[in-house]
Amino acid sequence: MTGALSERQSRAALSRLFEPSDLVGMALIRAVGAADALRLATAEVPVSAAVQQLVTEVLAEHGLTGRRALLSESMDRWGPRVADLAPQRDLETIRRLGGTLLIPGDDLWPAALEDLQLNTPIGLWARGNPGDGLPRHEKTVAIVGSRDSTHYGASVTGDIAGELAGSGYTVMSGGAYGIDAHAHRAALAATAMETGIPTIAVMACGLDRFYPAGNEDLLRAICERGIVLAEVPPGVSPTRWRFLQRNRIIAAMSAATVVVEARWRSGALNTAHHAASLGRALGAVPGPVHSANSAGCHRLLREADAVCVTDASEVKELCGPMGQELEETRVAPEKVAERAVHDGLCVEDLLLLDALPIRVFSTRDKLAKVSGLSLQGVRVGLARLELAGLAARNASDEWRKNR
Amino acid sequence: MTGALSERQSRAALSRLFEPSDLVGMALIRAVGAADALRLATAEVPVSAAVQQLVTEVLAEHGLTGRRALLSESMDRWGPRVADLAPQRDLETIRRLGGTLLIPGDDLWPAALEDLQLNTPIGLWARGNPGDGLPRHEKTVAIVGSRDSTHYGASVTGDIAGELAGSGYTVMSGGAYGIDAHAHRAALAATAMETGIPTIAVMACGLDRFYPAGNEDLLRAICERGIVLAEVPPGVSPTRWRFLQRNRIIAAMSAATVVVEARWRSGALNTAHHAASLGRALGAVPGPVHSANSAGCHRLLREADAVCVTDASEVKELCGPMGQELEETRVAPEKVAERAVHDGLCVEDLLLLDALPIRVFSTRDKLAKVSGLSLQGVRVGLARLELAGLAARNASDEWRKNR
Repeated sequence: MTGALSERQSRAALSRLFEPSDLVGMALIRAVGAADALRLATAEVPVSAAVQQLVTEVLAEHGLTGRRALLSESMDRWGPRVADLAPQRDLETIRRLGGTLLIPGDDLWPAALEDLQLNTPIGLWARGNPGDGLPRHEKTVAIVGSRDSTHYGASVTGDIAGELAGSGYTVMSGGAYGIDAHAHRAALAATAMETGIPTIAVMACGLDRFYPAGNEDLLRAICERGIVLAEVPPGVSPTRWRFLQRNRIIAAMSAATVVVEARWRSGALNTAHHAASLGRALGAVPGPVHSANSAGCHRLLREADAVCVTDASEVKELCGPMGQELEETRVAPEKVAERAVHDGLCVEDLLLLDALPIRVFSTRDKLAKVSGLSLQGVRVGLARLELAGLAARNASDEWRKNR
Repeated sequence: MTGALSERQSRAALSRLFEPSDLVGMALIRAVGAADALRLATAEVPVSAAVQQLVTEVLAEHGLTGRRALLSESMDRWGPRVADLAPQRDLETIRRLGGTLLIPGDDLWPAALEDLQLNTPIGLWARGNPGDGLPRHEKTVAIVGSRDSTHYGASVTGDIAGELAGSGYTVMSGGAYGIDAHAHRAALAATAMETGIPTIAVMACGLDRFYPAGNEDLLRAICERGIVLAEVPPGVSPTRWRFLQRNRIIAAMSAATVVVEARWRSGALNTAHHAASLGRALGAVPGPVHSANSAGCHRLLREADAVCVTDASEVKELCGPMGQELEETRVAPEKVAERAVHDGLCVEDLLLLDALPIRVFSTRDKLAKVSGLSLQGVRVGLARLELAGLAARNASDEWRKNR
């Protein structure tokens, strides 16, 4: 590389030079800015004691100290990659794919990512249709889970993601098989006629390829009607490390992360823990206790203080008042319909109602004895129950339950 | 009634005179003792201003004030029942059934009931086989739920109650259809050869009858090998009020209350709320979100801070260290077996492992570039991975994943 690079070109190069979450690299950028960080990291200019001091201070500000803070050691890691840097080529590649590289300071840059502090991505490679901008973090929900989802998980994911996207939320996920794919698909299907961004997929590999290959059609559809993001540049393969770091972006860009199905050990739990450590809301969908695919969700309920969520309205509650301001929360009918006849009765009337026979009629004296109420209490109570349509009397002023 | 009655006879009478949780009656007993409370409540002796003052003070100590604290009004309620009091007959009835009336101060009286404070039962009518005494509250678990349980609920109840009873816990429930009956049955079945008290049923009616009739065989079996309890005397029918008050006894006598299945509105939730307000542990078993019979459990997880429990070992955890002291907790195999090859690797080794090809061999230089590690880092890391059996090399010192 020769000559001065722009901020965007510098960050394009740095996103290839540094692995995601390379905190020494991140600290170097904070300390001296992206352009100088690139010159230092590539040994174009030598690292001075003053620069090392600045980096150490930035790391200390974030509670990070110790051996790994040495720039010289980090440069041993970065060195082998310097020859492959080609930021102009990478930027041209993403442009050719109809995309762009977003960097901090851009209008479209998601402010919520700054909650990752030192570990804020260097940039976000993006494909797709941002329309009027990326969705507000308060109206974005991450829906994640097992790749080997069950029919149950697929069904619940479809219900929740569909209703969320249909009511103006953006469904964020990782573009993987299983729950991720069901979430993206339901969001796309729910908003066929709508504007806005139904869904965002955050990938662990460069955006010049669709991974996994079996989801190519889905990811193409997301590029057309939603957005696909990655912090690594075109050409980079997915690795376990990159998957794990990718999860922090999903968690940070969402007001709530919901795990629909996950095994006792599952990558989805990693996203969940990122959400919790960021102070984002965390929801888990319960399932049958015999289902290994729900064991991770139950673990989150037990160990991570996740909120039990069973439908989209409960997920919206998780997003808080800012996410809900634009709409009425719909409550499932079975949760309001079961209202019993005795609702709202005082204790005395409940005792009296219990004492009233169903078939034969009973005198007030007997009702007092059976109910444990005074005669006066029975008289007043019967009047109230009669008004409520719960008690009936015959011509002899005897009483029974009204049918 | 004539002549001086014993404490036990007085409480037998008072348990018929007062409805469960008649707090003015309870306060009267606290103020003057059971024998004098009976004489006052039956108007055998007149209520003085001093007695009224004492009762008002007891109620105030428990935060209860206001109109309903007047003894005169309460006596209007009690009056109609005075003529029916026959404590000797009731005590003879329970004796004939092989039972007894337990009262505070008895060796067998469950100390945990005192946590109900003013609302501690006047006495407990008991049938069955207490053996060496009622079980310790720390080793008692309430398992409750819907009467119209599903196959799922029955299966989970059977698993949990059976394993609890088989490992020395007493399973407490309400003797009803559905979850209650499954819990009692599993506890009895799990302990066919054991001593101890596998299960206790707390009824809302007198113990001279088996209610519901369809559970008669089960309740008879509990009388033989467990214990059946009620705070109301023989002959008293179950009412909604008595069911609701009965639930506080189930909650108080158990270290933990577990709701296996419950609808959005269910009596089991009442027991759960009693447990929570007593500071007892509360567990809820999750289920499919589409099952109306799990909606109440999910509600408890969301609203009542219930702990998600999926098996007996998690229920035992709820009971705390005192309940667990006698045994090792068994953990389900699927929760320990899923250990991945990369467990325990440091970040650098994880990056290196991800960089190693599966089929072809790769040079150290290439591995440094792909992994983002220094050459020295690659050298050291490969040595560690080789030791761990995760990396293999060929004669040219090239490397790939070990298969």
